[in-house]
Amino acid sequence: MIQVISGGVCAAKGFRASGIHCGIRNNQSKRDLALVVCDTDCAAAGVYTQNLVKGAPILVTQEHLKNGKARAIICNSGNANTCNADGLDIARGMCALVEQHTGVPAEDVIVASTGVIGQPLSLKPIAAGMEALVAGLDTDGTPAAEAILTTDTVKKEYAVSFTLGGVECRLGGMAKGSGMIHPNMATMLVFLTCDAAISPEMLDRALRADVQDSFNMISVDGDTSTNDTLAIMCSGLAGNAPITAPGPDYDAFCEALHAVTTQLCRSIAGDGEGATKLLECAVTGAADAAAARTVAKAVICSSLVKAAMFGADANWGRVLCAIGYSGASVDVSKVAVSFVSAAGTVAVCEKGAGIPFSEEEAKKVLTEKEITILVELGDGGASAVAWGCDLTYEYVKINGDYRT
Amino acid sequence: MIQVISGGVCAAKGFRASGIHCGIRNNQSKRDLALVVCDTDCAAAGVYTQNLVKGAPILVTQEHLKNGKARAIICNSGNANTCNADGLDIARGMCALVEQHTGVPAEDVIVASTGVIGQPLSLKPIAAGMEALVAGLDTDGTPAAEAILTTDTVKKEYAVSFTLGGVECRLGGMAKGSGMIHPNMATMLVFLTCDAAISPEMLDRALRADVQDSFNMISVDGDTSTNDTLAIMCSGLAGNAPITAPGPDYDAFCEALHAVTTQLCRSIAGDGEGATKLLECAVTGAADAAAARTVAKAVICSSLVKAAMFGADANWGRVLCAIGYSGASVDVSKVAVSFVSAAGTVAVCEKGAGIPFSEEEAKKVLTEKEITILVELGDGGASAVAWGCDLTYEYVKINGDYRT
Repeated sequence: MIQVISGGVCAAKGFRASGIHCGIRNNQSKRDLALVVCDTDCAAAGVYTQNLVKGAPILVTQEHLKNGKARAIICNSGNANTCNADGLDIARGMCALVEQHTGVPAEDVIVASTGVIGQPLSLKPIAAGMEALVAGLDTDGTPAAEAILTTDTVKKEYAVSFTLGGVECRLGGMAKGSGMIHPNMATMLVFLTCDAAISPEMLDRALRADVQDSFNMISVDGDTSTNDTLAIMCSGLAGNAPITAPGPDYDAFCEALHAVTTQLCRSIAGDGEGATKLLECAVTGAADAAAARTVAKAVICSSLVKAAMFGADANWGRVLCAIGYSGASVDVSKVAVSFVSAAGTVAVCEKGAGIPFSEEEAKKVLTEKEITILVELGDGGASAVAWGCDLTYEYVKINGDYRT
Repeated sequence: MIQVISGGVCAAKGFRASGIHCGIRNNQSKRDLALVVCDTDCAAAGVYTQNLVKGAPILVTQEHLKNGKARAIICNSGNANTCNADGLDIARGMCALVEQHTGVPAEDVIVASTGVIGQPLSLKPIAAGMEALVAGLDTDGTPAAEAILTTDTVKKEYAVSFTLGGVECRLGGMAKGSGMIHPNMATMLVFLTCDAAISPEMLDRALRADVQDSFNMISVDGDTSTNDTLAIMCSGLAGNAPITAPGPDYDAFCEALHAVTTQLCRSIAGDGEGATKLLECAVTGAADAAAARTVAKAVICSSLVKAAMFGADANWGRVLCAIGYSGASVDVSKVAVSFVSAAGTVAVCEKGAGIPFSEEEAKKVLTEKEITILVELGDGGASAVAWGCDLTYEYVKINGDYRT
């Protein structure tokens, strides 16, 4: 049984974190450097952007996680350390600084950066901040969760407890992501920690399976970032019998993982740049999972659907249009669409054609902060959910002048 | 030699057109019904949306163009006649009205509709307007070009003259398209007329080849419409020796066709919903044409690139990011990027990394109304051009409340 608990990246046993302003950003009130350290070696796994342009930190993290082991995370915001000639040196330098100040070997450090692409990142403010950063390490994960944010308006932390063979385990994490969000195998930055004992192989398997229905199903703007990183570390300090093969314990772990990842997905999508609404597209009755995911993602990604939701306009023709160009093989004449929110449900389309509905009722449903677009394909038994947000003036404003 | 001439859909010999307000739209000052009629039977060809959700008029037009012959076009704006249970009857009814009032057989009529999806379209205002519509037929193509517009802010007409075996021929057309523009095999609505003599087979071949580098290379918002239609009619009244096989005449025809289609592409992209700027992405040095097209289209479609161009922000990292996720196999370490406009050229990236540039100079270049993003891949000799527009507050406003 999964229970929501308070906390984030320090909810699990053995993890401490810290977050400070070291000076990468000009705004002194915005933290820009985060550190997470575990008391012990952890099984670790990661998934990364599939963009051919990869941030230098990703290449270093991939190297460091090859042996399925890690013990610390260092992450800065304000600069993506991507498309810089000296990027690899800087990313390795950040790991060396962690070794120097904490004793965790550089090759056990996960490194990540987020911010503007193509501006040189200096090690100087990071080196100067290390002492304060390490001094700040404690079991409050919030300063670290704040330090990894960029255009995000809220911090994104979540944690659950669950049991494995009667032993209580905890899994929690922090995330950032607001623009350039359209992950392909991973999302912007998500760091998860857990105290369950699990082998690196099973952890990797669980993470890869999970992203198909979690982070790969979010889109804010259709742009796949160069720096997407999702990493998880499991300390094993909960004391459960180690998970080394599929079985009920592995399933319970995956369930807890999915509870945390889907909640972080909702946080990221709902805090999309400029967003006023969290959109969810729930597709049912698909021929297979791939078709369900393709349709859900197409609807969530449509600029026209997103703008209509901003305007609380029940323009369901745009939903049909997106289903039609999604690439999934769909029998349009069977499709049904409804809009659902806390204010109620409005059915707008059946068998691929419009049905009478109250515009007033629809307006009420679509004026809520969380909207679900229900699509029933009538083709089979598979389903999928995708998350996104509305398209607003504010998105244009934020991105018309992000660098300056 | 191709020469630009005045006019549009009536520039070629034998064509007359008309456009009126018949009452499909409430706004009395906006024409909503267009008719084009030729004095003689024409060779004709069309390409259509690949969206699985297809407007009823497209199904009827496909039927009518199976024999490669047509003589008239009827097109309304204000209602897409799509996702309506009686859509086919209405589209066929529009063709029957043309036969009744002009004598052109219904099966030689091209029919098209554009506007809101999923609202029933009544034949009544169309039937009531037919007399005035037919009475207005003359060689001024502009009222028809106005009648097919929706959220467009300018009419889109263009025409050229060229010679085939010493005989002067003319090719012109009209287009509409402002939102839901991301064609796949065709674009929103484009009607071309020509007086060259050409067989239906060669005409179809020319049209299909042309769209790969013209209408398939535009994007306003990434949404592929349900009603995209590109149709061409050739009257043969110029008196040239009919084109029935590849050769110099066919090449000259294709060249004239491309001159008109690319100009209409620029008109559609530059008048994208809410746009303040026409964006062009010119990719050179690609391994093959497919890679060049994929990269150009990804850059033009990126919401983040579009928003940066709106803000005149030389945020070239977003261009690299889009190249990286485009799906084309690119060696990122060879990529160079520059921004070009009437105000000059600014190189911003070489060998995949940033180079120093004047922000002031860049601002000046990007403040112009037409911006070219030059991408050199260093992989080979192929190239491609794509057209789009910036992403603005106005786009969000237009689409947040389009129906009401």
